Amino acid sequence: MEVAQILHMNKGAGENSYAKNSTVQSNIISIAKPVIEEAILKCLEGSTPESMGIADLGCSSGTNTLIVISDIIHTIQAKCCSLGRSSPELTLCLNDLFNNDFNNIFALLPAFYNRIKDDVDGTQFNGPCFISGVPGSFYGRLFPRNSLHFAHSSSSLHWLSQVPPGLESNAKTVLNKGKIYISKSSPQCVLDAYSKQFQEDFSLFLRSRSVEIVDGGRMVLSFLGRTSSDPTIDDGCYQWELLALALMSMVSEGLVNEEKVDNFNAPYYAPCPEELKLEVEKEGSFIVERLEALPVDWDGGSTEEYCMYDTLEALYSARGQRVAKTVRAVVESMLESHFRKEIMDDLFRRYQDLVSDYLAKSATKYTNLVISLIKVND
Amino acid sequence: MEVAQILHMNKGAGENSYAKNSTVQSNIISIAKPVIEEAILKCLEGSTPESMGIADLGCSSGTNTLIVISDIIHTIQAKCCSLGRSSPELTLCLNDLFNNDFNNIFALLPAFYNRIKDDVDGTQFNGPCFISGVPGSFYGRLFPRNSLHFAHSSSSLHWLSQVPPGLESNAKTVLNKGKIYISKSSPQCVLDAYSKQFQEDFSLFLRSRSVEIVDGGRMVLSFLGRTSSDPTIDDGCYQWELLALALMSMVSEGLVNEEKVDNFNAPYYAPCPEELKLEVEKEGSFIVERLEALPVDWDGGSTEEYCMYDTLEALYSARGQRVAKTVRAVVESMLESHFRKEIMDDLFRRYQDLVSDYLAKSATKYTNLVISLIKVND
Repeated sequence: MEVAQILHMNKGAGENSYAKNSTVQSNIISIAKPVIEEAILKCLEGSTPESMGIADLGCSSGTNTLIVISDIIHTIQAKCCSLGRSSPELTLCLNDLFNNDFNNIFALLPAFYNRIKDDVDGTQFNGPCFISGVPGSFYGRLFPRNSLHFAHSSSSLHWLSQVPPGLESNAKTVLNKGKIYISKSSPQCVLDAYSKQFQEDFSLFLRSRSVEIVDGGRMVLSFLGRTSSDPTIDDGCYQWELLALALMSMVSEGLVNEEKVDNFNAPYYAPCPEELKLEVEKEGSFIVERLEALPVDWDGGSTEEYCMYDTLEALYSARGQRVAKTVRAVVESMLESHFRKEIMDDLFRRYQDLVSDYLAKSATKYTNLVISLIKVND
Repeated sequence: MEVAQILHMNKGAGENSYAKNSTVQSNIISIAKPVIEEAILKCLEGSTPESMGIADLGCSSGTNTLIVISDIIHTIQAKCCSLGRSSPELTLCLNDLFNNDFNNIFALLPAFYNRIKDDVDGTQFNGPCFISGVPGSFYGRLFPRNSLHFAHSSSSLHWLSQVPPGLESNAKTVLNKGKIYISKSSPQCVLDAYSKQFQEDFSLFLRSRSVEIVDGGRMVLSFLGRTSSDPTIDDGCYQWELLALALMSMVSEGLVNEEKVDNFNAPYYAPCPEELKLEVEKEGSFIVERLEALPVDWDGGSTEEYCMYDTLEALYSARGQRVAKTVRAVVESMLESHFRKEIMDDLFRRYQDLVSDYLAKSATKYTNLVISLIKVND
């Protein structure tokens, strides 16, 4: 089964939905906000184009989707206003995989259009703004030649286009026994397969965008990575390590077939900054303007909220629950298609407990990479 | 409640779904096919653009949506192939109201993309093709300035942007007693209100498209109208007359409140060819290249199928059922928001019987107007 067919955030607005469990992703959007703003302002230096094409790649659904484009519209409007120019017409293309919940986004648009008409700095937004949904994989062409001035992607590029060759569920040899992503116990061939798949995917991503983005156009990409060149470092993979442990505890109780775990590897990769830079240089269409690696809490929680808990145990239990829900909202569709739907509640209960224990003794956070790129002449 | 909020074809793939009851609309698409083909070929005369923007306005969901764009891609590909040119990049924008089932269309796209890659005249389609969903009302701007080369709309422009002023459900005076659209018993002010709303809407439609379509670009619009300048002629309104009769029969049995019927008027208008031509001339951005009025069976059925029935009674009963299902799939969302959901089964059973009786003694058909327009220099 292709990743494009099975990967989607949990739909709807229920307890396990992405809409209700995406605080981490929303924090990551906030982190990248000043970088996005800077890139947009640079796009507007010189003359303002009559029309600007803007894409959000891997937009998902729910309120996070509209936060990003609202910020972008706001930045453009404020800048044009301060320059005494009229705003360009904006084409905002929201991209995600074919089975993303676009209906959910579109249902929010009538209110959104009304809001931006009235709300932008108290002045009426004076350029028309056209929002569209563009379904498909960003590992390939999505937009016409030279149609974009700015592209953004948040919390998406850590997903690979496929499970690396040799690690698929139908592979003859088990290479990554008892694990579901890179782990300290994984053999070198597993590390190599993952790194190679990332290089191919990221390079295809850049090549596709280089045709679509005008010269001088910009791109801000924000996604999970790691701090060290060692891919087995905790900040890059420990959330998967704990999910593998949860699965293996179910194996030991006969609730999950061991082969099922051996045959599952996540189509995910957390690169280090150097790997990213190298791929950008190799592809050659973009120049890195800025590259940052920033820590993000596993549960996206604010420290203030934690005053609510009487004991440290209660605190770590609440954090564990929050992490488990966040991870579940993202990976459940994929796990369900490989394991059984029926084991999900049990699996994520175990995962929650493992995460709670881990957080009590470790300060590991996600590392979010933010890279700002400028498209150079062909 | 705005039309844009309550009008949508019945979702899903159930017995009353639009997907299962849209043979009439699919026949209408077939009728317009040669006109679309002619317009596309004229777009390709002279030099082929590097990129072509194409819009389907009121695309709905289900297989009908993809039939149109598949035909368009096929025509462009075949023509470019015969000219020995490579195909332009195609941007295909599928538009409908915010609550249209875009997820349904997008789920069909992976297979669709695979098919057009292989199937176009046996040769691989050699231009990339980008399909997007653009939600919003076509009575207003939807696309950037000068971004479209061809626009198409089928079975959509007979829907008005709103119930004409004076005829809304909260109007103080009842003007159209016992009726839900123009009827032989409607006073002149009702006829005038409908005609004025159509003029305003159609003019706004043309004005919006005139900004979006490049000079020399084309538009083919196909929708229900009437043959005569008299708006009370049967081919323009009798399907509504029968629906009003069905509602009034429920009123007489105390199942529906009479006021509810008096306060409902459909946001629909079936213009005659002269009205259309006049609005195009008044707006001034387009020239009429072709205008046809063609009859379409109420049930979209083929005569061959009718050999299946032993008696004429059985035949008309089957046709009545088909008509009732077709109409229900389209208008149910609107009726539900005004009347109660619970009366729908009963209402459409009565409607089916009235239609069966009517078809047995009348040869009335829908009149479908097909108009082909060319955008002239500003």
